[in-house]
Amino acid sequence: MGPHPAVAAIRLAVRRVLHDVLTDHTPSPDATSAPSASPGTSHEQPPPPLVLVACSGGADSMALASALAFEAPKLGIRAGGVTVDHGLQPGSDLRAAEVVLRLNELGLAPVESVAVSVGRDGGPEAAARDARYGALDAAAERHGAAAVLLGHTRDDQAETVLLGLARGSGIRSLSGMAAVSGGPGAARRYRRPFLHLDRQTARKACMVQSLPVWDDPHNADPAYTRSRLRHEGLPALEKALGKGVVEALARTAQLSRDDADALDAWAGQAEASVRDATGLLECAKLYALPPAVRRRILRRAAIEAGAPAGSLFARHIEEVDRLITGWRGQGAINLPGKVVAQRQGGRLVIRQG
Amino acid sequence: MGPHPAVAAIRLAVRRVLHDVLTDHTPSPDATSAPSASPGTSHEQPPPPLVLVACSGGADSMALASALAFEAPKLGIRAGGVTVDHGLQPGSDLRAAEVVLRLNELGLAPVESVAVSVGRDGGPEAAARDARYGALDAAAERHGAAAVLLGHTRDDQAETVLLGLARGSGIRSLSGMAAVSGGPGAARRYRRPFLHLDRQTARKACMVQSLPVWDDPHNADPAYTRSRLRHEGLPALEKALGKGVVEALARTAQLSRDDADALDAWAGQAEASVRDATGLLECAKLYALPPAVRRRILRRAAIEAGAPAGSLFARHIEEVDRLITGWRGQGAINLPGKVVAQRQGGRLVIRQG
Repeated sequence: MGPHPAVAAIRLAVRRVLHDVLTDHTPSPDATSAPSASPGTSHEQPPPPLVLVACSGGADSMALASALAFEAPKLGIRAGGVTVDHGLQPGSDLRAAEVVLRLNELGLAPVESVAVSVGRDGGPEAAARDARYGALDAAAERHGAAAVLLGHTRDDQAETVLLGLARGSGIRSLSGMAAVSGGPGAARRYRRPFLHLDRQTARKACMVQSLPVWDDPHNADPAYTRSRLRHEGLPALEKALGKGVVEALARTAQLSRDDADALDAWAGQAEASVRDATGLLECAKLYALPPAVRRRILRRAAIEAGAPAGSLFARHIEEVDRLITGWRGQGAINLPGKVVAQRQGGRLVIRQG
Repeated sequence: MGPHPAVAAIRLAVRRVLHDVLTDHTPSPDATSAPSASPGTSHEQPPPPLVLVACSGGADSMALASALAFEAPKLGIRAGGVTVDHGLQPGSDLRAAEVVLRLNELGLAPVESVAVSVGRDGGPEAAARDARYGALDAAAERHGAAAVLLGHTRDDQAETVLLGLARGSGIRSLSGMAAVSGGPGAARRYRRPFLHLDRQTARKACMVQSLPVWDDPHNADPAYTRSRLRHEGLPALEKALGKGVVEALARTAQLSRDDADALDAWAGQAEASVRDATGLLECAKLYALPPAVRRRILRRAAIEAGAPAGSLFARHIEEVDRLITGWRGQGAINLPGKVVAQRQGGRLVIRQG
């Protein structure tokens, strides 16, 4: 008899990702002739790659840890784990120690707990996230990990899409979390094997494997936007629109990501063609571009001039765009980061004032 | 003392659209030399253009009718109205007669009620919509109308975006309703002056103008998806995400529409370059395109081969795409409308089987 379907599902998801990690980390045949490979070491076996799981002790990441522990040895991969102690709740250090114990019991090594101090920038959720990824990046560097697995599920993805929708800032913010994303110095460090799996499957897999899980009280705290979305917003939306909403949101994320990537690439290519010899943007050439491409070029130019990306909203770019499409002699436009955009003799000048 | 702010807002919205209609319908200077303008008639004044309002008797379209009646004469535009009797509720004919009376009282002429019979294709909401637009198109043709105004508000737009989101079929379905859209033989027939105005403003404008309005019981009937969304889904989402959700959804619609237009244009241009001399799609050239562009080309090819657009989902196109990106000798793929996609000797063949 095979494993429970939920366990089979989490293992398959992890196995696929581990295969990708191996493909990324297998030196190509050309690499043997690379200058750095000295003749004396070229026949030595490289150490088996290490994959870390980021684990909070919750059902999603405990399921992920269990699947990693099961699959990694079969592929000659070392499996380790990291838990981050955010220090936001009394006893969080004990909680972290317990997670370390559990990960050890699963046979992961190395396993460590990292304490971080959470700042205040961008609100409590963003500050905690920044601190967490900082710690995970450092742990990955310290252990020379080939990848870090994150337990985000399709339900988390759906919530992220709705949070992006609430910003109303376009399809990039609808594209949710990537299945593969980078950290400093490692373009494909983070992997999310469960992005197409629902939360219920992860929970079930823990149950049938008798893995104790921890329910973070933050996840049920209505003070957090994501928690309100999870417990009230999404269920109401499902009631109105039908059970397929979570899946539809996750698919929207993937399609939006591909669309945003293609348009960014287009804008990147078009940008050179709309600058004059001195590097200024020519209004007539901008006017001839599709609005979607033009506005991306304007956004890039504003960020390049010093406007902070996070404070630059669609309405700012629309206003700058009207210097091109609705020119009636309007004055300079103030953008975040003391950046000023103005039209001068058929050119658009965007710079820090 | 000027009009109430709500009345000023609806009038301004209508005035802007009427200016656009005039711009579209003013013959350009070149037109006087067009072959169809015979010398004998070139100095005759063309009749003033007619703009019709589509009015259900509800607050949105009654507000629209009142603003049209006020603004049109000032611009030398004739203002008329049409109400559609869907025959779905007992007494709907009396209701339609009452709307005709109200529109006459506002000074609109011509005003007419058109009875339609609603079919069943695509569910009750889609069938009613098809019947309604068929009647409006016919009325516009009959009266030679330059435009038909529709009372959709920003709230309707937000609902439409969420309905599109639930389909999970990409950014085109997130782009909601267009401010300007076409009917058969008239590319810019329909205008939605209130697309950036909230429902509350329309309702307020009716109240302060003492216009009686009719609340369609369908709008509160939980049997309808849109009604559930309006009364339960959206309020819950606002509670979780904050009051700006409706505005964010409406802005998402506009941004998604521009992005989808740009990508469609790109796919249209790229399509010619990926076909061989015999018109077949070359897999290697398709592979080199960004996924967002490639999948649009595949979708167009499937529709061209006879697949009904409405039945062609993202998952169908993904499967065809794997013939390009994940080729491992898989067999022919069946698409809706008996269309079959298969890879043959480096070419992708999509045709009705």
